Amino acid sequence: MTDTTYSYEHLQNFALKVFTKIGCSANDAKLATEVLLQADLRGIDSHGIARLSGYVRLWNKKRINSKPQVKIVHESPSTAVVDGDGGLGLVVAPAAMQIAIDKAKIAGTGWVAVKNSNHFGIAGYHAMMALQHDMIGMAMTNASPLVAPTFSIERLLGTNPIAVAIPADKQPAFVADFATTTAANGKLEILQRKNLAAPVGWIQTKDGKPSTDPNEGKQGGALLPLGSDREHGSHKGFCLGAWVDIFSAVLSGANYGPWVPPFVAFLEPPSDPVGEGIGHFFGAMRVDAFRPSEEFKKHMDNWIIRFRNATPIDGQDHVVIPGDPEREMEAVRRKDGIPLNAKVIQDLSELAQSFSISF
Amino acid sequence: MTDTTYSYEHLQNFALKVFTKIGCSANDAKLATEVLLQADLRGIDSHGIARLSGYVRLWNKKRINSKPQVKIVHESPSTAVVDGDGGLGLVVAPAAMQIAIDKAKIAGTGWVAVKNSNHFGIAGYHAMMALQHDMIGMAMTNASPLVAPTFSIERLLGTNPIAVAIPADKQPAFVADFATTTAANGKLEILQRKNLAAPVGWIQTKDGKPSTDPNEGKQGGALLPLGSDREHGSHKGFCLGAWVDIFSAVLSGANYGPWVPPFVAFLEPPSDPVGEGIGHFFGAMRVDAFRPSEEFKKHMDNWIIRFRNATPIDGQDHVVIPGDPEREMEAVRRKDGIPLNAKVIQDLSELAQSFSISF
Repeated sequence: MTDTTYSYEHLQNFALKVFTKIGCSANDAKLATEVLLQADLRGIDSHGIARLSGYVRLWNKKRINSKPQVKIVHESPSTAVVDGDGGLGLVVAPAAMQIAIDKAKIAGTGWVAVKNSNHFGIAGYHAMMALQHDMIGMAMTNASPLVAPTFSIERLLGTNPIAVAIPADKQPAFVADFATTTAANGKLEILQRKNLAAPVGWIQTKDGKPSTDPNEGKQGGALLPLGSDREHGSHKGFCLGAWVDIFSAVLSGANYGPWVPPFVAFLEPPSDPVGEGIGHFFGAMRVDAFRPSEEFKKHMDNWIIRFRNATPIDGQDHVVIPGDPEREMEAVRRKDGIPLNAKVIQDLSELAQSFSISF
Repeated sequence: MTDTTYSYEHLQNFALKVFTKIGCSANDAKLATEVLLQADLRGIDSHGIARLSGYVRLWNKKRINSKPQVKIVHESPSTAVVDGDGGLGLVVAPAAMQIAIDKAKIAGTGWVAVKNSNHFGIAGYHAMMALQHDMIGMAMTNASPLVAPTFSIERLLGTNPIAVAIPADKQPAFVADFATTTAANGKLEILQRKNLAAPVGWIQTKDGKPSTDPNEGKQGGALLPLGSDREHGSHKGFCLGAWVDIFSAVLSGANYGPWVPPFVAFLEPPSDPVGEGIGHFFGAMRVDAFRPSEEFKKHMDNWIIRFRNATPIDGQDHVVIPGDPEREMEAVRRKDGIPLNAKVIQDLSELAQSFSISF
């Protein structure tokens, strides 16, 4: 199957229409579109327009509220808990991150836990909101349970990503954004489409045996925490995923662990919820709450240049500074367009038809 | 070589004397001893009394100041930068964590970056200081460069641990404390002593080839970031180690990356420092800055119980809640004593002799 390439503006126009059709305000539709398509621009295809019909299916099932009243329900000078009112995470998350940034302006740092939300797109978008304010940004979220803790066969955690965005001076910002599993679910979806085997260490069978079948998740298997197995530190990956789950959901009052409602609309949420919706956690730290911004950013440049120029292993690429590949991809895709595979195009065409709009 | 077991009080008495001999105040000697031995009690033998002579050698070389004036050099309502004045990290770190806790009492959270410090023992000690205040504690530190970023042969990062301590109600606290490498250096030291091979994925040769020789580090080889190789997510482990390095040192004004002064006294610090000493980063978040403490802690109990009771893989242990093994070890060692191997005993006996005290 060959890909077809669409301009950013084409996809933007389409997503805007869809978000408007489900009842989003003009502002919310614009924001949701921007956050969603940031994933396609940055090359994280699993989190972009390919998910649009998934959001619509959740809205169809009344599991997404397209007109949320996002509000602070608890706060201190440097913290807040935000109730997302069942809204699109694509809209709730930037609102919550903005609160973190506003808190940081006054208190030095701001930390916001969110409950009653939904999938928020790529974590990196929200963390990067801090950069223009000379702040360090952080974003994490819990997600549908697909990951088994070390030693278990049960899927109790999501791929629970962490993003950290750190401003530099002349160098582009340091932007880490990664699932706390060995491989993100999107990587497995690519292998499924191409009918290829997964490396040992990404996934286990429903009995907890190593597997290379990327479809294992559909048969009760589980993704593995970063580290793959106990000998290679999967208990540390479990710590990371647990940390994200607790900060995102136990602090906020969202659902955690196996109680997190699934993203896919054909699976019902657990009937015994322990909180509301899914949870996120955001942080913003004013750099000059620690040292003068210019000084910090010059040292970040020095850090980035030293690491980027580290002697590579013979025949290997140079050291990749977190954020470099995504930024380079964005430059290409803004110019040349965004490739979509036939399955995604088919899905979007059906979505268009259901709303009597064109794709 | 069989181990010999010593009571906590015996080791405490000895460490107290040594810290006093190098000029620490009575209070500092007591605190340094407590932090140091917490590692032995919790079973992290590489970070406990086995390191005592290393601290003394650094003091001999005037690279540790036993009478530091620890002070805040920059602050905002929720942040501070602390200058450790070249003191023992064992003393500087608890002082900095206390500042984070005090800030959190007023601002909801407190975040403290530290420069001009030294090795601070186990990260978990400092993070756990928050628990008695119904706060979540975090601690991280950079360290001597032993770790190569993905694709490089250069040792540019330390094993840069992260600790996160989260209070619960009737359940013991969740305490994650882990190096951001596949295996901590202490694990390799154990293999070296026992003359055993390391698993593939822990270490590489000086040319960046996979190795199973635990002595590889002495021949220019490097430890690997959590994930082991690119296919299994080592770029994520690199992100984690980089994050710790930047928060600990670029935010504070300490040395970062390859400029971090080595812990071993026989290696000189780089002649072109980019900051002062090594760096740490601490955080404290008041739970009730997010939601009522009792509510949060009851949900933490529920989280812990659900994960601990997850169905195990046939023939495997149950899911290990972070902090459980260390707490169980501490109960045993407080009662039965702390086993030391012959090499450590020899080292401590020589240390005793040099100060004309008994071990």
